[in-house]
Amino acid sequence: MSRIAFFGPVGTFSEQAALELATDQELVAVETIPAALTAVRKGDAEFACVPVENSVEGPVTATLDGLAEDSPLVAVAEALLPVHFSVLTRPDVKKVRTVASHPHALAQVRHWLERNLPEARPVVASSTAAAAVAVRDGEYDAAVTAPVAARTYPLRVLAEGVADVPDARTRFLLLTPPGPLPEPTGADRTSIVASTKNRTGALLELLAELASRGINLTRLDARPIKGNFGLYRFFLDFEGHVAEARIGDALAALKRRCEVRFLGSHPRADGVRATVGADASDADFAAAARWVETVRSGESA
Amino acid sequence: MSRIAFFGPVGTFSEQAALELATDQELVAVETIPAALTAVRKGDAEFACVPVENSVEGPVTATLDGLAEDSPLVAVAEALLPVHFSVLTRPDVKKVRTVASHPHALAQVRHWLERNLPEARPVVASSTAAAAVAVRDGEYDAAVTAPVAARTYPLRVLAEGVADVPDARTRFLLLTPPGPLPEPTGADRTSIVASTKNRTGALLELLAELASRGINLTRLDARPIKGNFGLYRFFLDFEGHVAEARIGDALAALKRRCEVRFLGSHPRADGVRATVGADASDADFAAAARWVETVRSGESA
Repeated sequence: MSRIAFFGPVGTFSEQAALELATDQELVAVETIPAALTAVRKGDAEFACVPVENSVEGPVTATLDGLAEDSPLVAVAEALLPVHFSVLTRPDVKKVRTVASHPHALAQVRHWLERNLPEARPVVASSTAAAAVAVRDGEYDAAVTAPVAARTYPLRVLAEGVADVPDARTRFLLLTPPGPLPEPTGADRTSIVASTKNRTGALLELLAELASRGINLTRLDARPIKGNFGLYRFFLDFEGHVAEARIGDALAALKRRCEVRFLGSHPRADGVRATVGADASDADFAAAARWVETVRSGESA
Repeated sequence: MSRIAFFGPVGTFSEQAALELATDQELVAVETIPAALTAVRKGDAEFACVPVENSVEGPVTATLDGLAEDSPLVAVAEALLPVHFSVLTRPDVKKVRTVASHPHALAQVRHWLERNLPEARPVVASSTAAAAVAVRDGEYDAAVTAPVAARTYPLRVLAEGVADVPDARTRFLLLTPPGPLPEPTGADRTSIVASTKNRTGALLELLAELASRGINLTRLDARPIKGNFGLYRFFLDFEGHVAEARIGDALAALKRRCEVRFLGSHPRADGVRATVGADASDADFAAAARWVETVRSGESA
């Protein structure tokens, strides 16, 4: 049975995403995002499941930097999880005086806590799951956790669907070494990372290669290289699959211009179908290529 | 005396940045980044000092979102702080068995801890300063803190300049309501936030307005609006001052095309002078405008 290394411990949102993405793989919790990527690179696991962006917190920089460096990994699937927390307590707790969680989780339920548990003191823990463990062990009264934690720890669900920003979501990727790609579905996402010389218009030229082929950008993150604010890498997500003519053509153009690494083509979790620019379908590309052939052979002009 | 509200508590990197940016203002610690911005909007403070980007962690989303919404604030100065931590202990500690800090700080000194304090167990705290307080109170043996914490708390400096990534830096902004701008220095940064319709090429068109006027982009962050991955705002930093012709001309062009808010023009902390594209100096713009006037008046063609 193949394995998925996920950013653990068990009982976190990453485990929940891994459960959603798994077919028949064994799930293995690892301590950090780099450790999940390393597990796949070393062959200790076939897949890694890690977060890539959160609509409130922004890009997950450890994942982005980890994909740009070392041996290539590609995304073959994604999961989009609503950031809805559960509040868990021990069955014997009468009054909640302390509520533990990871600082990011506490920040995302702050208003809820003020309204619903105004007398509970927030306490920081190293993860939402560590908070659940501390509550189980009697250290604190309640924990703010991922919903999946309720199946792992013998705790009572005090509240579910807790979130100050109701539509906050985190996107997770299932990563593996390069190999056969998922089939195109018409609702796909392609990701790359490109490094360009730092000069006026460098990013503009990259985006022009996409826009001129009718490709719709869905995300752009600029990350400094090696912690240097002067030198940037661009992480680009766009609609479409590399098997499609306009995407392959754009990637070839980018490869001529700059260092570029393919990070995968896979179905979108939200099922949104790609917008294909006018005159940028596979048939349009094929017809145009045929015409050039006829010009080259002297059959047409 | 005017006041600077900084993202506290005292003894953090934000206090250190505020000290660097203060002239004769009183520093006031507030609990969160939104609270620092609110203090200025309500008139409780004249300035707010908050982090805007970290070369390892990425953009500070609370600051970006806070600048895009509510009444306008502009940056009038910036500070660039190396992310070098100090490790503090109580004078009576013989052997360090626990070391506390904010999870981000612990992540950034992980390798150092493994090499230098391999037997110390990491413990999470709500801030680097809260870790120092816990060490002072005998709860833990050591704290990983901002260097400035050593002046606030009666602790012994066990190590200084601690960082796994030696050139990691955080940039802080000094924000205030719109008013007289800092003088141009030739080494300035201008920041804006722009919202465009989500369609192919929208970002490309924004960047083209900058590149065609010889303006060098220094940072770009795309942030989903209201936690919605489908709708983005673009935070753009570029070289130059709005008092310069090419910057003013570009901002006017952007204002025609999309919603745009000015976030300030101020000297760069690193003193790097602006690259001005060929034919994009103030004199070039003035000469071209004069020529159009002569054409309009029929004096020339």
